[in-house]
Amino acid sequence: MQRAGFSFVVQATDRHSAARASTFHTPHGAVDMPAFMPVGTQATVKGLSLDALAQSGTQMMLANSYHLALRPGEEVVQALGGLHAFCGWDGPILTDSGGFQLFSLAQNTTITEEKAVFRSHIDGMRLEVSPERAVAIQEALGSDVAMVLDHVVSLPNDTAIVRDAAERSLRWARRSQRAQTRGDQALFAIVQGGLDPKLRVDCARELAEMDFPGYAVGGLSVGETPSQMYDVLDVTVPAMPADRPRYLMGVGRPEDLLEAIRRGIDLFDCVLPTRNGRNALAFTAGGPLRLRNLQYARDVRPLEPDCPCAACRHSRGYLRHLFLAGEMLGPMLVSLHNVTFYQRLLSAARGAIVGGGFNTFADEKLRCLGSLGI
Amino acid sequence: MQRAGFSFVVQATDRHSAARASTFHTPHGAVDMPAFMPVGTQATVKGLSLDALAQSGTQMMLANSYHLALRPGEEVVQALGGLHAFCGWDGPILTDSGGFQLFSLAQNTTITEEKAVFRSHIDGMRLEVSPERAVAIQEALGSDVAMVLDHVVSLPNDTAIVRDAAERSLRWARRSQRAQTRGDQALFAIVQGGLDPKLRVDCARELAEMDFPGYAVGGLSVGETPSQMYDVLDVTVPAMPADRPRYLMGVGRPEDLLEAIRRGIDLFDCVLPTRNGRNALAFTAGGPLRLRNLQYARDVRPLEPDCPCAACRHSRGYLRHLFLAGEMLGPMLVSLHNVTFYQRLLSAARGAIVGGGFNTFADEKLRCLGSLGI
Repeated sequence: MQRAGFSFVVQATDRHSAARASTFHTPHGAVDMPAFMPVGTQATVKGLSLDALAQSGTQMMLANSYHLALRPGEEVVQALGGLHAFCGWDGPILTDSGGFQLFSLAQNTTITEEKAVFRSHIDGMRLEVSPERAVAIQEALGSDVAMVLDHVVSLPNDTAIVRDAAERSLRWARRSQRAQTRGDQALFAIVQGGLDPKLRVDCARELAEMDFPGYAVGGLSVGETPSQMYDVLDVTVPAMPADRPRYLMGVGRPEDLLEAIRRGIDLFDCVLPTRNGRNALAFTAGGPLRLRNLQYARDVRPLEPDCPCAACRHSRGYLRHLFLAGEMLGPMLVSLHNVTFYQRLLSAARGAIVGGGFNTFADEKLRCLGSLGI
Repeated sequence: MQRAGFSFVVQATDRHSAARASTFHTPHGAVDMPAFMPVGTQATVKGLSLDALAQSGTQMMLANSYHLALRPGEEVVQALGGLHAFCGWDGPILTDSGGFQLFSLAQNTTITEEKAVFRSHIDGMRLEVSPERAVAIQEALGSDVAMVLDHVVSLPNDTAIVRDAAERSLRWARRSQRAQTRGDQALFAIVQGGLDPKLRVDCARELAEMDFPGYAVGGLSVGETPSQMYDVLDVTVPAMPADRPRYLMGVGRPEDLLEAIRRGIDLFDCVLPTRNGRNALAFTAGGPLRLRNLQYARDVRPLEPDCPCAACRHSRGYLRHLFLAGEMLGPMLVSLHNVTFYQRLLSAARGAIVGGGFNTFADEKLRCLGSLGI
């Protein structure tokens, strides 16, 4: 099905890796890829004003259907003009389907072929979601990109369980696709299959035949090691259509982004920059800073001397003070810095791809980044 | 003592009241008065970025010496370049002396003629502050305007206790003045005297003879009724020098500001706009809105249609959602709106004074404001 206002153009492919520079056009504007979407779980990126979000270099944000359907309810968002008017972000927005939250957050989740039944993590109310309902919620929200409902399981796990979930995810993807009624929303499919290379490839190929406008790798960052994740990408990405955006869901650390870009991923989302920002951990090119440490008490330097974000107008000493004093401005500023750090990293990665030297760029960045230890 | 970079110019006095429009010049810029200082207790106005603070129309902010001396310590602020560099606010800053916090926040405060001894509200450490020490702290912080240490008591109270505190405040004012060493910081005196008209007038006159560059009315908003406070202003303000800024400390509600301006007050500070903002109460010209109320769930209107603040780009429904979802952006936005509301109110008051119709303006505003109920 043709989607009005959507197109995907690959501008450059790296000579020595699968990395690529591309632009994804949506009805709410273009996204230069590789791109990182800050997570606006409840239609706000925690601690960031709209101005701050724009200043960070963000082009596209993510919002969570599960959370918004529970509170305030997708019909309230719709009554207030849809997700863009609701939160005031006029750029592209992607909503997830709730599949991951059914696995990670909802209580007493029971999944049958027809639907998932669960209890709200907010008030324990018994609720259910089917592939059709997940599409209906996202159509009411009015995001630019919607995701199919998928069945997520923890890793490592029994082969039979992983296979069953992956096969159900395929059937649910088809049902999600059939349920679509809006012509101005792109529905992305999600490749499942755990750590099983054959299952991942089969899943990717079967979804490719269904002709979705974009494809995600799901079910990662759920207990596996980074190297297991990279192994999954090594086999899965080549089986995903090259002429569609490839989205790695819920990942991750700066080093994960670089390793995934190297393997051909175009799009990311993750709570790490904002969650860590709220906890006084600042990302820098030289490795993370834990701002509560005494060593920063009289440190007049900004987090990063070349960073244009509002946090970097301040000294590390002031930022430390804000956290020790329990002031909101600490989480606000360091979240902004961290999102800006991610956007600058991906923007530089894009430049390196266009310039033909992504592998060298990534190796150098990885050497300096240090370990996040998380 | 002449202070470099300070001057006070009265541009207009209202025909039918004591209200006046003036400009107070400081080394960090001018303040058009009547003016409202948002409270940056710990060198940050809670929930407001520097950009937001500037966008609110704020020209001068307040910071609390008591809090900053306890954490991070004034010597740390000094090591990080002084208060302006520390918090990044390049405009005028006033610091209070800690007198009010000794009364309201510190534990086991004992006041002798020499000094106050108390325990920190943070960790119970035994500390002391004298008039000389309060000046030294504020000189280390490097604010534009410092306040003398005063002895604050609750109201109503025994005449003897109020008189003793007021007389000590006079002696402490003189000691504070003698302790000053910086030529680029203006030290304001504080009129005490509780609800006793004669004591207030005597106190004001005695301080006037000491020739301070500015005068405050202190010891209000500590238990008395609004009408008792207005009565105190009626007798006190005329006894304060007309050629110096007059500052009403820690007050208050929008209606209090209008009533105090009418009586000749030029400068205010109060936590109400930010504290209420964090609690989902939005000030508007038509009265306060309590945003948690169900009636706002699908309300597409902004808080105020003519307000230029970032909160007013959003619907009341979205703001309500942010509070119910526990998102930081709710307190951030409504605090910004409330500070903007205060600044717009005082800016309009200034315009009315210059235009010669302040009393009519104030009566009309008071009629519409409704009751805050706090």
